[in-house]
Amino acid sequence: MFAPVYLDHNATTPADPAVVEAMLPYLAGLCGNASSRHEYGRGARRAIDEARSKVAAAVGAHASEVVFTSGGSEANNLLIKGAAACLKPGVLVVSAIEHPCVIRPAEQLRKRGWTLHKLAVDAAGRIDGAKFQTLMAERPSIVSVMLANNETGVVQDIESLATQARAAGAWFHSDAVQAVGKMAVDFRRLNAAGVNALSVSAHKIGGPKGAAALILDKRLDIEPLIAGGGHERGLRSGTENVAAIVGFGVACELAAARLADLAPRLRVLREQLERGLVALGATLFGRAAERLPNTVYFAFRDIDGETLVGQLDRAGYALASGAACSSANPEPSHVLRAMGVEAELARGAVRVSLGVGNSAAHVDGFLAALQATMLRLQQLTAMVV
Amino acid sequence: MFAPVYLDHNATTPADPAVVEAMLPYLAGLCGNASSRHEYGRGARRAIDEARSKVAAAVGAHASEVVFTSGGSEANNLLIKGAAACLKPGVLVVSAIEHPCVIRPAEQLRKRGWTLHKLAVDAAGRIDGAKFQTLMAERPSIVSVMLANNETGVVQDIESLATQARAAGAWFHSDAVQAVGKMAVDFRRLNAAGVNALSVSAHKIGGPKGAAALILDKRLDIEPLIAGGGHERGLRSGTENVAAIVGFGVACELAAARLADLAPRLRVLREQLERGLVALGATLFGRAAERLPNTVYFAFRDIDGETLVGQLDRAGYALASGAACSSANPEPSHVLRAMGVEAELARGAVRVSLGVGNSAAHVDGFLAALQATMLRLQQLTAMVV
Ligand SMILES: Cc1ncc(COP(=O)(O)O)c(C=O)c1O
Ligand SMILES: Cc1ncc(COP(=O)(O)O)c(C=O)c1O
Repeated sequence: MFAPVYLDHNATTPADPAVVEAMLPYLAGLCGNASSRHEYGRGARRAIDEARSKVAAAVGAHASEVVFTSGGSEANNLLIKGAAACLKPGVLVVSAIEHPCVIRPAEQLRKRGWTLHKLAVDAAGRIDGAKFQTLMAERPSIVSVMLANNETGVVQDIESLATQARAAGAWFHSDAVQAVGKMAVDFRRLNAAGVNALSVSAHKIGGPKGAAALILDKRLDIEPLIAGGGHERGLRSGTENVAAIVGFGVACELAAARLADLAPRLRVLREQLERGLVALGATLFGRAAERLPNTVYFAFRDIDGETLVGQLDRAGYALASGAACSSANPEPSHVLRAMGVEAELARGAVRVSLGVGNSAAHVDGFLAALQATMLRLQQLTAMVV
Repeated sequence: MFAPVYLDHNATTPADPAVVEAMLPYLAGLCGNASSRHEYGRGARRAIDEARSKVAAAVGAHASEVVFTSGGSEANNLLIKGAAACLKPGVLVVSAIEHPCVIRPAEQLRKRGWTLHKLAVDAAGRIDGAKFQTLMAERPSIVSVMLANNETGVVQDIESLATQARAAGAWFHSDAVQAVGKMAVDFRRLNAAGVNALSVSAHKIGGPKGAAALILDKRLDIEPLIAGGGHERGLRSGTENVAAIVGFGVACELAAARLADLAPRLRVLREQLERGLVALGATLFGRAAERLPNTVYFAFRDIDGETLVGQLDRAGYALASGAACSSANPEPSHVLRAMGVEAELARGAVRVSLGVGNSAAHVDGFLAALQATMLRLQQLTAMVV
């Protein structure tokens, strides 16, 4: 069977074999409803409790601060809309480069009387500190800035932003979906600086699709998005997805255990990749900023990103053009637009995101395939002209 | 290993082996993000499309009417709050016996300016038709009445209620989470009568936890609860839980295929169980109404339901007291209260819900264990007195 090399780990990751093994008894066996008061129910409850401790440990939180959700998108919507529902409509600040699952709920709130400000970033994709400070004078109620961006991999200085937000009286949330597993994330420390909530998603860190968490400072009141039986301290009702939660716990444990080895290994691969891309004449986005060790976002002038990704897929390399989650949408990336990248270059954007299974041979093979593909595309273009 | 006989299928069901087998490649293999434009992404998208057709076929809907969610609770919240968000605050009608994941979101809307009416039921747990007709004079915008109740198994005459609701200009939703797989459910026919939306949940019908659907008439506008990348026609964002959705599809296919055999088989077991319970002096709830073939809800005066369920668990039978989803809550069932059952008797409520794997031997064994347990409890009580 034809199995392309997977270079799209920011879109989703293969589940680790240990994760799948841990999940199987809860899928194939008789897994109770964790609310049931019999042996099958208690078994499910114990499994969830254990996973909750593992997730908490991986991000330096207390188990009681973990609210399980079905995905990162739900965690972000829960925080933004759930916190807003407990406050009078006021000012909401999100960065212009947030994932759509932060931007869209923020826009929904605007329709309900909130004033929404989208924070500018500089050419490297970093929040503009001076503009942030100015916005704090508007006394926002809620501020949401992601820890690491899914397209560029650019990491924000969340601690200093949160400190300023707290001084202005705001609740501060950070989408850490792309950060966990690729850099150290310590909720206790972030919380001390003023971060009140973090979003984490299992399928981005070697866990299954279907489980995620909002790590929530208990001082921050939120209304449930999914109300009902009162699960998850009343913040997220619905029969728990026991198997996925168990897998999430194991994935967190593995991610935390291998971070010290994995991050430098990915960084070496990334440097190898970037040297090759520069030699081919690529523009690299966000390179001046601190970035995740696994992410490279680049473009070639005059080569369409979608086309390149399609050709490379056929050549045996799976990667993304723009953000995977919005790539059904052919508009140039809102992240690159916020960074001031001209539309023409932005349309060329291609993302490689490396993961546990990648090797130097994958990077070399990819660079060779890329060069061959570009040559072919340029010849085709020349023929058309 | 000690494996109690499972008699709690309304709480959750074991996943069918064929369901687990169909899911495995998407859990253990490299399953892409269905939004990704490479082979792994397209494979995930194809799997979701196929599952969508299977779910649609099982409930007589069109694939384009299926909105996947993470669970029945999410589907119910999405419909209630999502429809309300597209309307001016008005009158909302739900039955008094709805699952908490319909009642709680309805109560959230009340805080946002909606007028909430809870529909009364008669002593057998049926919606009071005369009271329903009267309420329609208030011109509700949204009406939600479940197809079958999770505690009593009582089935409502949804078609006639929906016809009245439509004449009054209301959108009509029905929670079919407990109905599917136990009775025929045909959205086309229900839709013709005036039902605009149905909720269905995989883990109640031999599928996995983590997948469910809102079957939605496209004339009914709803706002997403989880906004973001625009998945599910913009109605439910978030990376799709491919494996669970695939399992849901297979479970729907199996449930539809076996219904004609299963329903009468369950009915025979239920009658065997009810004869035994009556002989022991039990009160059976909802017996005068049309009910699901698998559900028996009963009580013995002077015997606490929680205690009985705990003792029977030790004796090797897993069942529920009150509703599983709210049994962390020791108050007597809101369903029984709505039926006018006195609190003292309601506290004795115990539910047996049969499923595919149950046999006549299970029922006989259960009746013997119940009799022995009651005897022991009565002796203990006598000693205390
Ligand atoms: C930064 C970021 N936040 C949130 C999400 C949404 O997470 P999920 O796919 O688990 O809903 C994603 C990926 O899709 C992401 O990259
Ligand atoms: C009638 C009814 N509706 C909705 C639900 C909620 O479904 P889920 O557990 O999939 O969230 C349940 C069971 O929990 C139910 O019995």
